[in-house]
Amino acid sequence: MKEIPELKDVQEAAERIWPHAHRTPVLTSRTLDERFGARLFFKCENLQRVGAFKIRGACNAVFALSDEEVRHGVATHSSGNHAQAVALAARLRGTRAFIIMPENSPKVKIAAVEGYGATITFCKPTLEARASVCAEVMRKTGATLVHSYDNAHVIAGQGTATLELMQDYADLDMVLAPISGGGLLSGTAIAAKGLSPRVQVIGCEPEGADDAYRSFQTGKLQPLTKPQTIADALIASLSERTFAILRKHDCRVVTVSDPATIAGMRLVWERMKIIIEPSAAITVGALLEGKIAVSGRRVGIILSGGNVDLDRLPWR
Amino acid sequence: MKEIPELKDVQEAAERIWPHAHRTPVLTSRTLDERFGARLFFKCENLQRVGAFKIRGACNAVFALSDEEVRHGVATHSSGNHAQAVALAARLRGTRAFIIMPENSPKVKIAAVEGYGATITFCKPTLEARASVCAEVMRKTGATLVHSYDNAHVIAGQGTATLELMQDYADLDMVLAPISGGGLLSGTAIAAKGLSPRVQVIGCEPEGADDAYRSFQTGKLQPLTKPQTIADALIASLSERTFAILRKHDCRVVTVSDPATIAGMRLVWERMKIIIEPSAAITVGALLEGKIAVSGRRVGIILSGGNVDLDRLPWR
Repeated sequence: MKEIPELKDVQEAAERIWPHAHRTPVLTSRTLDERFGARLFFKCENLQRVGAFKIRGACNAVFALSDEEVRHGVATHSSGNHAQAVALAARLRGTRAFIIMPENSPKVKIAAVEGYGATITFCKPTLEARASVCAEVMRKTGATLVHSYDNAHVIAGQGTATLELMQDYADLDMVLAPISGGGLLSGTAIAAKGLSPRVQVIGCEPEGADDAYRSFQTGKLQPLTKPQTIADALIASLSERTFAILRKHDCRVVTVSDPATIAGMRLVWERMKIIIEPSAAITVGALLEGKIAVSGRRVGIILSGGNVDLDRLPWR
Repeated sequence: MKEIPELKDVQEAAERIWPHAHRTPVLTSRTLDERFGARLFFKCENLQRVGAFKIRGACNAVFALSDEEVRHGVATHSSGNHAQAVALAARLRGTRAFIIMPENSPKVKIAAVEGYGATITFCKPTLEARASVCAEVMRKTGATLVHSYDNAHVIAGQGTATLELMQDYADLDMVLAPISGGGLLSGTAIAAKGLSPRVQVIGCEPEGADDAYRSFQTGKLQPLTKPQTIADALIASLSERTFAILRKHDCRVVTVSDPATIAGMRLVWERMKIIIEPSAAITVGALLEGKIAVSGRRVGIILSGGNVDLDRLPWR
């Protein structure tokens, strides 16, 4: 695969991962359609294995590696859903996973990664510490890196959610997804634009972690400093690769306030009866804030995950 | 239709209601399958319109009435999901709905019924007051009663959930559903036994509202006194009709404690990422308490509804 994946890479990813990842349902809601004056098609990656789309990219990357490449295992640094996804993908492939996690990670996430049989190394909760400890672990073990978004196979794998969505509903006008490091949105754009060039692809980003928005405004990759948002899965920053892919496909980025994201989360819980995490609810938050002109349109929405601590709900 | 519906009545109900009720998805969970050593097929009526299976029976009853019979509207007494279901069914049929609700009904439920354009009459929160006020409203308006469970069309309509489930998964060993007045379980039994006589049909009832369990133990309809349970949709008592149907189809009833129901609710929220109400979670509570021997079996489970007050979760 080239460094910048194309539609055929997403299609190959779909062939590669189908025994391991669910084909998630697409749900609709009359109530939300009436509220926004649009037809909304929710791709429910919250119902995916490990509770998030991340298993798609992780499985595609881990299974695309040669036997030689996975002989010493795979490694990644992540505090969130990608950690669980790589741990499970490695188990499915029959190899070892080395996961570098910040020492302040929630216990439930640590337990989940351990439950998949991965070896965890803890590090200080900074991006620098994560990367350097990960490099050290790879040097010692010979494990191969599976980066959470700056990896062509991961990007192609994430695109399979949109591939499935547009197989079910071909005639979409736009597709919305959260944006953080840009892996999901890149895969989304490659799949959506590859299947239907007229589709508009829009990333929704927290106001308090808006490096992608600023990068699009300035045309130059901007750093992310001191992110602050309830959408705790959306605090990575774009890479040169994901920025290039998003620009190539004419993506747009809108920012969303935390209160709108929380309201969107509650709206989906109450009316659609499904559990989504704040990072997934940000797309609905964007609609509540009127950031995207959806009236009369057919809109695909990637509900990216459903991993929530039920003892710490944001409206308590 | 005869007083005791048969499979063909459920099939006719399915024909009658399909334009109005969702065909809900059937979800599965590897985690829960591993936990219980069974294959579980969850029929997601929490994703149904009005958030519960009740729209099936209400639509079947309201649309089975003649134009003459609905000319003066329909009436029912209910504090819960049936009230909303009849209100919506009446609106879809283009007639009026008169709903008798206890004066202490949750505001959100009152608002929902009003939202469907129904006329509400409040009454004291006793079964006697509900029935007598309902009779008075019917006398004044000429509206036709759509009882929440002691009605052959309502029962046949509720059976369509199981009809769909067994169209999707023919080879089930048993089907579990909550039991209250017995409308849902009666429809479930008629559909399941009609399609596959070897299927076992089991009703799950709160320990604190166990009239059906006691009726089965004694072979005689037992009254329900002072029900106390978190499963607030399960505090009606069997009628002669539903008791006869359940006995005819060799149904079994198990009781479930509230703590097990709450644990089942949380398990489904956390692992399946869908919102179910306590009355729906009681089936999973029965599994957690080991009340039903499901090991190695293929088990259909009717998740009856998902209407929950998100500000008052039972594990807070």
